Amino acid sequence: MATLKPLTDQQLSADARAVLDDIRATRKTDYVNNIWRVLANDPPQLKRTWENVKAVMGPGALDPLTKELIYIAVSTINNCEYCIHTHTAAARGKGMTDAMLHELMQVVVLASQTNGIAIGYQVELDERYRDL
Amino acid sequence: MATLKPLTDQQLSADARAVLDDIRATRKTDYVNNIWRVLANDPPQLKRTWENVKAVMGPGALDPLTKELIYIAVSTINNCEYCIHTHTAAARGKGMTDAMLHELMQVVVLASQTNGIAIGYQVELDERYRDL
Amino acid sequence: MATLKPLTDQQLSADARAVLDDIRATRKTDYVNNIWRVLANDPPQLKRTWENVKAVMGPGALDPLTKELIYIAVSTINNCEYCIHTHTAAARGKGMTDAMLHELMQVVVLASQTNGIAIGYQVELDERYRDL
Amino acid sequence: MATLKPLTDQQLSADARAVLDDIRATRKTDYVNNIWRVLANDPPQLKRTWENVKAVMGPGALDPLTKELIYIAVSTINNCEYCIHTHTAAARGKGMTDAMLHELMQVVVLASQTNGIAIGYQVELDERYRDL
Amino acid sequence: MATLKPLTDQQLSADARAVLDDIRATRKTDYVNNIWRVLANDPPQLKRTWENVKAVMGPGALDPLTKELIYIAVSTINNCEYCIHTHTAAARGKGMTDAMLHELMQVVVLASQTNGIAIGYQVELDERYRDL
Amino acid sequence: MATLKPLTDQQLSADARAVLDDIRATRKTDYVNNIWRVLANDPPQLKRTWENVKAVMGPGALDPLTKELIYIAVSTINNCEYCIHTHTAAARGKGMTDAMLHELMQVVVLASQTNGIAIGYQVELDERYRDL
Repeated sequence: MATLKPLTDQQLSADARAVLDDIRATRKTDYVNNIWRVLANDPPQLKRTWENVKAVMGPGALDPLTKELIYIAVSTINNCEYCIHTHTAAARGKGMTDAMLHELMQVVVLASQTNGIAIGYQVELDERYRDL
Repeated sequence: MATLKPLTDQQLSADARAVLDDIRATRKTDYVNNIWRVLANDPPQLKRTWENVKAVMGPGALDPLTKELIYIAVSTINNCEYCIHTHTAAARGKGMTDAMLHELMQVVVLASQTNGIAIGYQVELDERYRDL
Repeated sequence: MATLKPLTDQQLSADARAVLDDIRATRKTDYVNNIWRVLANDPPQLKRTWENVKAVMGPGALDPLTKELIYIAVSTINNCEYCIHTHTAAARGKGMTDAMLHELMQVVVLASQTNGIAIGYQVELDERYRDL
Repeated sequence: MATLKPLTDQQLSADARAVLDDIRATRKTDYVNNIWRVLANDPPQLKRTWENVKAVMGPGALDPLTKELIYIAVSTINNCEYCIHTHTAAARGKGMTDAMLHELMQVVVLASQTNGIAIGYQVELDERYRDL
Repeated sequence: MATLKPLTDQQLSADARAVLDDIRATRKTDYVNNIWRVLANDPPQLKRTWENVKAVMGPGALDPLTKELIYIAVSTINNCEYCIHTHTAAARGKGMTDAMLHELMQVVVLASQTNGIAIGYQVELDERYRDL
Repeated sequence: MATLKPLTDQQLSADARAVLDDIRATRKTDYVNNIWRVLANDPPQLKRTWENVKAVMGPGALDPLTKELIYIAVSTINNCEYCIHTHTAAARGKGMTDAMLHELMQVVVLASQTNGIAIGYQVELDERYRDL
């Protein structure tokens, strides 16, 4: 039902194939999910998007599981069904327990609740938080 | 500029004062920020909101700093200026370094980017992610 | 700081002046707020927008105060500072008490909280709610 | 398709069962919808969420039907399919007519329209709305 | 699964029929899509909405295809599945190529990315952009 | 008021300086706006972001002005004050007239209005738009 056909392996351009090969090698799985097959219709966008994902989601100052939790939080507020499902699965693959998922959701909805209070009443920022 | 006056300590009802006392005791600081002073106009909402914050933001399956990062991510997508400033300060107080803040923002904007791709092309959820 | 100058009465085209005159007559006040003065740069958009406002916000199956409450709820979720301030003032002019404003905000944040739960866990719609 | 299994009555913990019993008693129906069965995986979140719903959605300064209308408005802007369906049904159960639903939607889309104008042109808040 | 039945031609009121006739004449097709058949339950809203669409989406300072691209961009950020599908089809009918769709999506996700940076770090507006 | 200090030219790392030099050369102006100076605190993110901007916003299947219009539309829905101001200025620099800005805003608010209708009534996608 996507507005562009997801490409099969047979339909890939050479540029797109190289990116999908790297996705498979990096993720150590032969399965490539639909978003990459849809993006394969536009190889430069496919390449830039995958490079961003690889650069950002690996270990760094934050560990990969923490990053997946943040990703799920953003996808929940943006209401991205595709992203919530695929990254909930990814987070579980990186060690997220049910207890962690519950706490994640509790923080997400608490933040939306207090965001709504701050916005709805137009609470003025305290002087002390204005400075860096 | 809030649509309701933030209350001074002198203007608090007994119920509101009890909540602000608990905020001070829990946070180990005499300073109480504006959102609580605005909510003090509605003591039952003040009490429920603070109880939610206390229950959710403490340690559990996720540590308090991870929760603050998730909170900032949600506030960024919801575009809540008040919440971004106050929780960026809170996260720093709990040990967030500049490097962590940079990675947080990178994940937030990456997620928004890939959310947009999944939504804009209406990428169909892969069969394998449909099941629990 | 708008990206277009709000027009003074002297700068109005005849078409824009007619709309502002109708706003003044309908609202029984000489004061015309900035959004209309900015829209006055584009008289057809000004006219269509004002006609929508007049047609929708008057009494009907819902009373005007209920409509203002709904308007504030939408503006809170859309995070429109201008709209929250002007319609909170309008709602007060139509009889909104502080107690009503508190309950409005409680419903708005409760809805955001449960919206987040339904979206974050991707709760499936119950069979019985699928049919009309 | 939720990321967590909705629990059957047989799978409930004692804490979760107590909340579902209270939902049944309060709503005077044996049917408990999916969001509560998904939340039942996390009994403390289930309990807090239900207590918020009970405290906020009952009669007060605003009547229960007005609260349902506000709830639908928020769920529309947040684009929560689950919430729109279940609360449109709830509002009808509390007396919402088709004419009221139409007016609700007209206010919701009008507010989004004028929110967009205020934001898109960055209309500056009139001096008179800055003060409380 | 809409919360109101889309009306068949036989079920239309005279007012609604007149609008659907105009949609057919303007679009030079007998097919009328579901959103108009749902709105037909509320003839005044149907009429106002269609008149807005006709007035705004025709040629003017911007050509109709550019307007469809902007429409898809907004619908992507608002996450409106119905609107993305129908307007992607409409844009293709007006000459949108796959290459144009790819560039559209690249701009949409780039803008969300930089929007997130400006909001997440609360970047202060440069003095020079404050003035008109 | 940003949560990170925008860096002056004197404070730039060598990596960040190279990016700012390229921004100056590409845009043919010595002025570098705040978002880049804030991002300069994180040189890899600065570099990736600027490379995305350069790759996406230049001429291609869509002309640069059309891309700026789409950018403003997204920034309006995301409610990014910084982005609306800077890209409205950029669009004017690329030839956007007041008439074009008015039409842009009319499409943005019309799309939000009809998005709201499709979402609020949960209009079901017509069979014919389901297929590619």
